[in-house]
Amino acid sequence: MWAGRFSGKPDKLMQEFSQSVSFDQRLWREDIQGSLAYAAELQRIGILTEKELADIRKGFEQITQEIESGKFEWKVELEDVHMNIESRLTELIGDAGKKLHTGRSRNDQVATDFKLWCIRVAREELKPAAVALVQAIVDRASENIGVIVPAYTHLQRAMPTRLAHHLNAYAEMIFHDSRVFMRHGAVDAQGRIALGSGAGTGNSFPVDMECLAKSLGRNLAARNSMEAVSDRDFALDLVFACAKCMAHLSRMAEDLIVWSTAEFGFVTLGDAVTTGSSIMPQKRNPDACELVRGKTGRVVGHLMALFTLLKGLPMTYNRDLQEDKEAVFDATDQTLACLRVMALVFSKENFKVNRERIQQHLDSGLGYMEAMNVADWLVLQGVPFRDGHDITGRLVKYVEQKGMRFADLTAEDLQAVDKRLKPELLKELSLEALVERKQVYAGTAKARVLERLAELKQWLGKDNDQ
Amino acid sequence: MWAGRFSGKPDKLMQEFSQSVSFDQRLWREDIQGSLAYAAELQRIGILTEKELADIRKGFEQITQEIESGKFEWKVELEDVHMNIESRLTELIGDAGKKLHTGRSRNDQVATDFKLWCIRVAREELKPAAVALVQAIVDRASENIGVIVPAYTHLQRAMPTRLAHHLNAYAEMIFHDSRVFMRHGAVDAQGRIALGSGAGTGNSFPVDMECLAKSLGRNLAARNSMEAVSDRDFALDLVFACAKCMAHLSRMAEDLIVWSTAEFGFVTLGDAVTTGSSIMPQKRNPDACELVRGKTGRVVGHLMALFTLLKGLPMTYNRDLQEDKEAVFDATDQTLACLRVMALVFSKENFKVNRERIQQHLDSGLGYMEAMNVADWLVLQGVPFRDGHDITGRLVKYVEQKGMRFADLTAEDLQAVDKRLKPELLKELSLEALVERKQVYAGTAKARVLERLAELKQWLGKDNDQ
Amino acid sequence: MWAGRFSGKPDKLMQEFSQSVSFDQRLWREDIQGSLAYAAELQRIGILTEKELADIRKGFEQITQEIESGKFEWKVELEDVHMNIESRLTELIGDAGKKLHTGRSRNDQVATDFKLWCIRVAREELKPAAVALVQAIVDRASENIGVIVPAYTHLQRAMPTRLAHHLNAYAEMIFHDSRVFMRHGAVDAQGRIALGSGAGTGNSFPVDMECLAKSLGRNLAARNSMEAVSDRDFALDLVFACAKCMAHLSRMAEDLIVWSTAEFGFVTLGDAVTTGSSIMPQKRNPDACELVRGKTGRVVGHLMALFTLLKGLPMTYNRDLQEDKEAVFDATDQTLACLRVMALVFSKENFKVNRERIQQHLDSGLGYMEAMNVADWLVLQGVPFRDGHDITGRLVKYVEQKGMRFADLTAEDLQAVDKRLKPELLKELSLEALVERKQVYAGTAKARVLERLAELKQWLGKDNDQ
Amino acid sequence: MWAGRFSGKPDKLMQEFSQSVSFDQRLWREDIQGSLAYAAELQRIGILTEKELADIRKGFEQITQEIESGKFEWKVELEDVHMNIESRLTELIGDAGKKLHTGRSRNDQVATDFKLWCIRVAREELKPAAVALVQAIVDRASENIGVIVPAYTHLQRAMPTRLAHHLNAYAEMIFHDSRVFMRHGAVDAQGRIALGSGAGTGNSFPVDMECLAKSLGRNLAARNSMEAVSDRDFALDLVFACAKCMAHLSRMAEDLIVWSTAEFGFVTLGDAVTTGSSIMPQKRNPDACELVRGKTGRVVGHLMALFTLLKGLPMTYNRDLQEDKEAVFDATDQTLACLRVMALVFSKENFKVNRERIQQHLDSGLGYMEAMNVADWLVLQGVPFRDGHDITGRLVKYVEQKGMRFADLTAEDLQAVDKRLKPELLKELSLEALVERKQVYAGTAKARVLERLAELKQWLGKDNDQ
Repeated sequence: MWAGRFSGKPDKLMQEFSQSVSFDQRLWREDIQGSLAYAAELQRIGILTEKELADIRKGFEQITQEIESGKFEWKVELEDVHMNIESRLTELIGDAGKKLHTGRSRNDQVATDFKLWCIRVAREELKPAAVALVQAIVDRASENIGVIVPAYTHLQRAMPTRLAHHLNAYAEMIFHDSRVFMRHGAVDAQGRIALGSGAGTGNSFPVDMECLAKSLGRNLAARNSMEAVSDRDFALDLVFACAKCMAHLSRMAEDLIVWSTAEFGFVTLGDAVTTGSSIMPQKRNPDACELVRGKTGRVVGHLMALFTLLKGLPMTYNRDLQEDKEAVFDATDQTLACLRVMALVFSKENFKVNRERIQQHLDSGLGYMEAMNVADWLVLQGVPFRDGHDITGRLVKYVEQKGMRFADLTAEDLQAVDKRLKPELLKELSLEALVERKQVYAGTAKARVLERLAELKQWLGKDNDQ
Repeated sequence: MWAGRFSGKPDKLMQEFSQSVSFDQRLWREDIQGSLAYAAELQRIGILTEKELADIRKGFEQITQEIESGKFEWKVELEDVHMNIESRLTELIGDAGKKLHTGRSRNDQVATDFKLWCIRVAREELKPAAVALVQAIVDRASENIGVIVPAYTHLQRAMPTRLAHHLNAYAEMIFHDSRVFMRHGAVDAQGRIALGSGAGTGNSFPVDMECLAKSLGRNLAARNSMEAVSDRDFALDLVFACAKCMAHLSRMAEDLIVWSTAEFGFVTLGDAVTTGSSIMPQKRNPDACELVRGKTGRVVGHLMALFTLLKGLPMTYNRDLQEDKEAVFDATDQTLACLRVMALVFSKENFKVNRERIQQHLDSGLGYMEAMNVADWLVLQGVPFRDGHDITGRLVKYVEQKGMRFADLTAEDLQAVDKRLKPELLKELSLEALVERKQVYAGTAKARVLERLAELKQWLGKDNDQ
Repeated sequence: MWAGRFSGKPDKLMQEFSQSVSFDQRLWREDIQGSLAYAAELQRIGILTEKELADIRKGFEQITQEIESGKFEWKVELEDVHMNIESRLTELIGDAGKKLHTGRSRNDQVATDFKLWCIRVAREELKPAAVALVQAIVDRASENIGVIVPAYTHLQRAMPTRLAHHLNAYAEMIFHDSRVFMRHGAVDAQGRIALGSGAGTGNSFPVDMECLAKSLGRNLAARNSMEAVSDRDFALDLVFACAKCMAHLSRMAEDLIVWSTAEFGFVTLGDAVTTGSSIMPQKRNPDACELVRGKTGRVVGHLMALFTLLKGLPMTYNRDLQEDKEAVFDATDQTLACLRVMALVFSKENFKVNRERIQQHLDSGLGYMEAMNVADWLVLQGVPFRDGHDITGRLVKYVEQKGMRFADLTAEDLQAVDKRLKPELLKELSLEALVERKQVYAGTAKARVLERLAELKQWLGKDNDQ
Repeated sequence: MWAGRFSGKPDKLMQEFSQSVSFDQRLWREDIQGSLAYAAELQRIGILTEKELADIRKGFEQITQEIESGKFEWKVELEDVHMNIESRLTELIGDAGKKLHTGRSRNDQVATDFKLWCIRVAREELKPAAVALVQAIVDRASENIGVIVPAYTHLQRAMPTRLAHHLNAYAEMIFHDSRVFMRHGAVDAQGRIALGSGAGTGNSFPVDMECLAKSLGRNLAARNSMEAVSDRDFALDLVFACAKCMAHLSRMAEDLIVWSTAEFGFVTLGDAVTTGSSIMPQKRNPDACELVRGKTGRVVGHLMALFTLLKGLPMTYNRDLQEDKEAVFDATDQTLACLRVMALVFSKENFKVNRERIQQHLDSGLGYMEAMNVADWLVLQGVPFRDGHDITGRLVKYVEQKGMRFADLTAEDLQAVDKRLKPELLKELSLEALVERKQVYAGTAKARVLERLAELKQWLGKDNDQ
């Protein structure tokens, strides 16, 4: 490209160091898409003839086929995806290929290609994978609406909850993620298209940037060419969305790992997502979940890399920016894989709820959690607040001294502690009753959980593209 | 609080370690706001009498006064902002103060307070500071519309641009930031209010969470109580927005530091934002810009801290989450300070453009950048693409061999190289002409820059709250 | 300081933004230490008289008293610790105070002070705190040498181990940390002293940098003045050591949180390091451990902040470097507090092992882990490898089909499976036997664990400063 | 491996997700090294016969050849490097291959392989690359001992320095890095070998771990098997060393980028490390330096990834740890490449000092920097400190009012300001004189710089392995 003026031969070490085609070839689809839009615009303003435009289109058709079929020969000495494709185009159709670059620069070209790639991957790959995971979770929640498990704070049993409600908490997280992925490119800062910004101060030919943006499926053109070629906020935004999604996945992974222990035993994860040992038949290592949890660091690390990269970079394009791609590629690849693997974990085959084991835990007593409800119940009976607390305190002491569980209490026990502890309180102390008292909008009562499941199913069923 | 059942005295080391009131007292305003909304709801459902509600309101009025006047005594032994305020309320109005906590938990309380705080700071402090910085930049751009400077890629002079266009690139970045700050809390995931979620499975009393959310100025209530008390995405979102803003600020800081060197000398920064030496009178260290650049790492570090904190945290509330606040407080404090300091840097007093010095640089030649325009001009004259390039190459060689600048070329020179290089090309080679050829939407031509300035001014002038 | 030449008044916003005295006053001790060494050197070379040196010493004595007694008035308008102390010295002793700065710059002064501070805190605060934690862990290990617990891989029970061996794993980690803290400043890169480097190219007066370094208790002087004033590797090294220590602490915190669950129940943490609820008496939230785990992110975040800060910083001193201190201060403060709190967690009062509960878990079967030992035993009996595996496989199937535990096997059972499974195998299958077979150097057999405990105790007992 | 007990077929998605052989095959050399040591030990204790040991050795010889010649077939379904090699060994030599794993686990195997790999790469690849860079810098410094350039603080000209001294500052940084790389594995925590720790509690067979460690070239065996299989400090240490090295490289890259601007013009970087444009002949984009600066973020990101990965991981081995390798591999690859590229940048061919251009800058005046020396000179003449400052202030004002440079001052000028400004002061004001006054140990005076160069050359010349 620029070798003409340079006497020194390109150093082999340096060629390997500075090439990007080994990874940025992933942008080929967007590179061709951008070039087609640009060619049409060049033809409109008279730089290309209709014939040349037709040749270019035909050339790109062939290149597309070559790449898709794996026959395209990527050359490191041509440095990047842009030069590889342009060079092949010129091979195929001659000088018109070279004219395509008129007024354009690799600076606006890569900013455009990369942003289009990010938007496509966010919307067409990450978002559907997130939706599929929500679907799997919602399915498991629906099947287990009747199952009650301890809810934890500080990893200590704190109160009973529906397993479906717990699972819905995960659904909620990933639902939010799916919406963030879907919106990627929709916010003006993310969606503006650089094409037409040239090397940084604009194109010298009268191309219509707003038309170019529209023909690339976006609403807006960049508003400032210098900002456009140096901006990588869209990459930060996408990697941040991935890192946040991974943080969510790491939390469910942690729960599942804890739930799969011999000690908890709430769930058994299926063969497909665990590893075992021929000689230790009971062993089911939750490898899928562990890898997901471990990969969180990797994606967060990529975000860190991008911020460090951008910090203190002068305007406008600097070669440092080439380092933006691998971080984004790996962050999205890993997040995508983790979303898919977690959907597999939550599949019917692999997510087995051990209802008996859970019941054993519940039967062993939730640790006086019921006490809170006694106090609440007394308040609702009109017992003065202060008295209610006092009575409850005495009941707890009674239960503790007798070494019994709340579930073992009889009407006589209640009366022995305080006359205001009426027999009808007993039925308020069942786990079901405790759960059903949480009737608030976000609560764990059955009706509320079913409502939310219905909403999520409706969203899953429709074209959830907004 | 829980000392009753515990025999051991709270360890002094542990008390200091686990207290949060020394920093979370910053949430006091939102804590009272949340409590007032909650009290009204408790009265509506009959838990509190009208008298008690009135007392609570009066109590909070007094507490507000005490805090604002600095008379409120924050006690470490009461651990956090919530207990400090509740305890004082009970001191002031008796038992009604205790009843206020009926059905509520510190888990949903802190999630609500902290989210409201984040939304307020984003919208009412960060966003106006960003707008003020855009205003300062737009003012300087407007004043310097006629000034042309080299635009850089790779920190190498690449082409001429309007200084106003360069400044507008900064305005664009901060304009986007201001919109992100303004939208904080507007997206559903960010805006949902936890109040009513209790310790994690919901409130046992029939409070209306949607009403609570609305009375706190938000549209939506949390949809899942377990997710609501363990979610800190809103904190991640805000710190990420701050980190991105800091990345922007670090880039302008870098440019200004480079521009202030003796070697560049494009600008002189004022006394208020530089430091000097009594004995080295010319020294003007761009300390304000350096500190802004340096603080970028700090804010990015806080984002990393939050991600590491959240990674692998089991559901629901865990005490680890107490560590979320200082990171957010410092990230927003630093970003706010940096926005304000950069507005000071870009103030009329402190941002002095050295037009003569810039002109000296321009006069020394932009390094054959004009060559690109010769090629473009030939294309527009209908000279075949390949010939155009060839002619330009010969012209560059001519200029180089004669040791002259493009600005020194005469019509004779042009003709000596190639007959197709007509005299009218000469006027195309002035810096002004080069700049004016960038007429595209995002280009550096005067009309385009003025258009964008007009748009930004209109946005600055109106209630820019969307 | 430099106000003389500057017409503009220092802006209040900017003063607050750029001051560092609010935090760097923590360097006061090292600042005085450095000044005393420098004063002696100035006297030696004739810049100061003996009388002036004596005055300076007396002045610093008074300043030390003022600071220690809290009477020293720190002034924001004097910007930093250096100017505050120098200004007070001049107030107290007149012109000699000013002469002290002859040939010195704040650039070499702060690099010296800060490095000395880091070395002192690493060696005199962090290292002893780490040693104290090792002591507490070793004490608990010694008390529990006879207790066997499941060892986990993938949080799945994998094999039996001595609790003491498990605790020793933690001791090992913190032992390594203590050695890293002790060595801080010992490696040449970390220990070289900048004093004498002036603003960056050296001192113009013939001070002896090697003497200065020695009089500050270090062996080596900086070898290059430009590197010396811009280097912050010593800060990176210390924050990295803290982050690594925190990663260790976070892992033990996680284990303790899991072990404290109702489901595991291996340990009960004491009142001093947990929180509870007056109404839920069994609840013991492991807050100390959770906070330690949460603070890990904070320290890692500071490390990232420093790296981002340093990235791309030109030589030599830049004001960005002022941002190095708060990160280091907070990283060391938090690590120190966490080390101390974990020592409290592992104290006799707070770390209660529930031997019966552990035994219940063990009695329920370790999940055929014994099978591995059958195979090993057969190998040692000379049974061909392949046959051994086959026999073991058949034994596992036998046990599984009968729904029995390995502990229930009789000699008859063994013989029923294969004649080569001799009765003496039975005693090899007790948990104790399984543990005792791990006689390798790093193994969990009693003798090995006691050996390691003895080594650690010896190290703890002596002056462990190497 | 463990498929026997598992009914479900391994899911293709999961297989791809969990396999590591695509990257951990890089450990093959260490895997074989570890296996050979282990086989010898098994033979010593009678588990393997001499014949079997001989077969194993022959088998590994063949496998080594196959891998080195690229003929070895890595199989994803065999998951990792360990199983691939073991499986091939068994194919080649039969059952003895299987016996090799007796008492060993992949847990201690991978901890050993990976640590050995890290030590080898640190010592045999990173360290020599760092040494080579020091060599290149020292060569350039030696050639330019006579060149004086401005030294910068705040990117403002602050004082004159020898270019060689400035370059030596870089040499100092990388000299330190090379020593850290060389020491990797030498500190006890880094050097202890896990082999013999089995799955986590130790090997059941009487292998001698200390012998194993020695036969692998290390001094020490791990002291606690549980810590040994879960420890990844050695990976953190290496990535940290790389990140610190990258921070150093990013700082020199930044300087070189600034120095290569048209405005500074101190150096011209050669064709091999820059890119240009056929049509803009003067353009030399410092791409090599920009890429190095950009890659800093990447390596720091990997460090962040590892910390996030390790945070809160329970004991002992968890599958999350599989995610440690790619971060380390890429961190070391990138650092290695950057060290080599920077050595190319500093090669004679590529690092051209523009002495005339630098002289022009110097001639234009260093901005009264000389004033500081007037004050110093007066102090040395015995003029009272306060008077000295006063006189200097008057001289600066004189120079400033006359619009002259310090270099233009005559003896008459000096006398006109103050009689104590003797003519001999004049020769003290040359740049050379200013530089030569910095005679301190770390100073920029010629003798000092030559001394340091001599020391570095001596170190470079010898076997610099300590």
